[in-house]
Amino acid sequence: MKNSPSSAGSPNSSLSPVSPPIHFFEYQERVRYSETDQMGVAHNKSYFEWFELGRTEFCRQAGLPYRDIEAQGIYLVVAEAHCRYHKPLHYDDPFLIRVGLSEASARKIVFSYEILAAGSGILLATGYTVHVPTNRRAEVCSLPPDLLSRIKAAGKP
Amino acid sequence: MKNSPSSAGSPNSSLSPVSPPIHFFEYQERVRYSETDQMGVAHNKSYFEWFELGRTEFCRQAGLPYRDIEAQGIYLVVAEAHCRYHKPLHYDDPFLIRVGLSEASARKIVFSYEILAAGSGILLATGYTVHVPTNRRAEVCSLPPDLLSRIKAAGKP
Amino acid sequence: MKNSPSSAGSPNSSLSPVSPPIHFFEYQERVRYSETDQMGVAHNKSYFEWFELGRTEFCRQAGLPYRDIEAQGIYLVVAEAHCRYHKPLHYDDPFLIRVGLSEASARKIVFSYEILAAGSGILLATGYTVHVPTNRRAEVCSLPPDLLSRIKAAGKP
Amino acid sequence: MKNSPSSAGSPNSSLSPVSPPIHFFEYQERVRYSETDQMGVAHNKSYFEWFELGRTEFCRQAGLPYRDIEAQGIYLVVAEAHCRYHKPLHYDDPFLIRVGLSEASARKIVFSYEILAAGSGILLATGYTVHVPTNRRAEVCSLPPDLLSRIKAAGKP
Repeated sequence: MKNSPSSAGSPNSSLSPVSPPIHFFEYQERVRYSETDQMGVAHNKSYFEWFELGRTEFCRQAGLPYRDIEAQGIYLVVAEAHCRYHKPLHYDDPFLIRVGLSEASARKIVFSYEILAAGSGILLATGYTVHVPTNRRAEVCSLPPDLLSRIKAAGKP
Repeated sequence: MKNSPSSAGSPNSSLSPVSPPIHFFEYQERVRYSETDQMGVAHNKSYFEWFELGRTEFCRQAGLPYRDIEAQGIYLVVAEAHCRYHKPLHYDDPFLIRVGLSEASARKIVFSYEILAAGSGILLATGYTVHVPTNRRAEVCSLPPDLLSRIKAAGKP
Repeated sequence: MKNSPSSAGSPNSSLSPVSPPIHFFEYQERVRYSETDQMGVAHNKSYFEWFELGRTEFCRQAGLPYRDIEAQGIYLVVAEAHCRYHKPLHYDDPFLIRVGLSEASARKIVFSYEILAAGSGILLATGYTVHVPTNRRAEVCSLPPDLLSRIKAAGKP
Repeated sequence: MKNSPSSAGSPNSSLSPVSPPIHFFEYQERVRYSETDQMGVAHNKSYFEWFELGRTEFCRQAGLPYRDIEAQGIYLVVAEAHCRYHKPLHYDDPFLIRVGLSEASARKIVFSYEILAAGSGILLATGYTVHVPTNRRAEVCSLPPDLLSRIKAAGKP
């Protein structure tokens, strides 16, 4: 659970419909046995859990623990999720989750992700998630300005 | 999702600390790909999800959908969970979840489970879960008498 | 686990980069308790497990159980996965998984999905997955012609 | 992912059918969002994934990465799993997984676990898993003597 901001934002896939972030946070993890499937590699759903881990750390580094955002009655509901799998990950492989901010407005937040092999830095997967703020009654709402400006600030190097 | 009450309660393992139920509900499922691990069999955690599916169907058959229990502000929190794995399950294998009531009082509910191969009926796993009723503030409480009597009634053939 | 082929393929989102399938298979499921998160709705990763269930049923209906495909040494590795979440699903909600074939060639298979509320038929989510055939050594390979033609045939009404 | 051996083995629940280990390894984690359920707490199945993480680290600290054990064709299949849940864990809560060896013979390995709140050290859950060695054909076998002696050595302070 070592975290370190990474200043050089690596470019996303050119095919991605989301803008490349200018700054990434990094977070290291290992593939759990329970995340593998009978193909002997990490299951496709696991990457979405890793992206979520990355968001949690992004918010924490921004001084905005996501649990505090929800405690204020704001939920960043996932409206869209995408992952492109380049190379497989195996049980116990250490990897880096890099998370950056591709877009941030009062009505929409887009995070981008890269999964890289720890050590070699080989790119294993890329993805993004689109989030819409809602209130406790699950109604779409606007992100409070202070929250938005802190998220935006965290997305800069 | 075929359900059928089964009148002949099969005896639990003699080593089990819980009483054998006198009546089982049955529920059929298949092993999902995402439930396998690199050993090529269903992962040990999946059985606890299947037990939960069994409880959901037990409550539904009792005329007490579990979502309605929670809507009343009562939660059947898992206080203990146990599984003994006899034979492995593989991807796409059809199996039966048999769930019965081993104990029911205002402060404690114990469910017992058997996982059987669909078709052959071979016993693949056994287990139990102990539940304690809590209120919305997560405080231990007594199960309302009507709820308890309906659960007890459902546990009888 | 009721399955029924559906002849009228509903159009996918116009924003989707994949072609709308001309034929859908349907498969009914319910949201498991373990698939919810603290927002009180089905977690974003669960949809990818449901898509996989849909693929399993698609292959079975095509007379090609996916386990038999892997037994031949062919793996349909997930190269890309996407989901757009329109409306949330709650614990125990019954829903339909509709799966269709958007593209099929010896080197690439694309499945499309819709998640609909059982009963009302309201569209809750859409998605697609891109698959690449590999052999047992995880090397990209060509899908054997008989397999490809059977998958193609299954994708037609 | 900070790991540190802990010399003072804390006693297990007196009700546990397994012997208290004399030495524990510790491993720190946080509750993932995807591990919560609609009760707002970590789902009962998650603890079994954490136990597995603990085993992975135990083996690594023993100089026996579990992946290397499987590479030798030996699988430590889970034959039994148990967890007693004392207090709930919430999203993003940091916690310690303590894992110790309760029994080790050529035919059976028993691991014991404690989940503690990081910081306060409050005991949140206890559990154990029983493992049986099998070979690549899933047949029960004897643990090679060198493997057994290294596992035993790792279980001592």
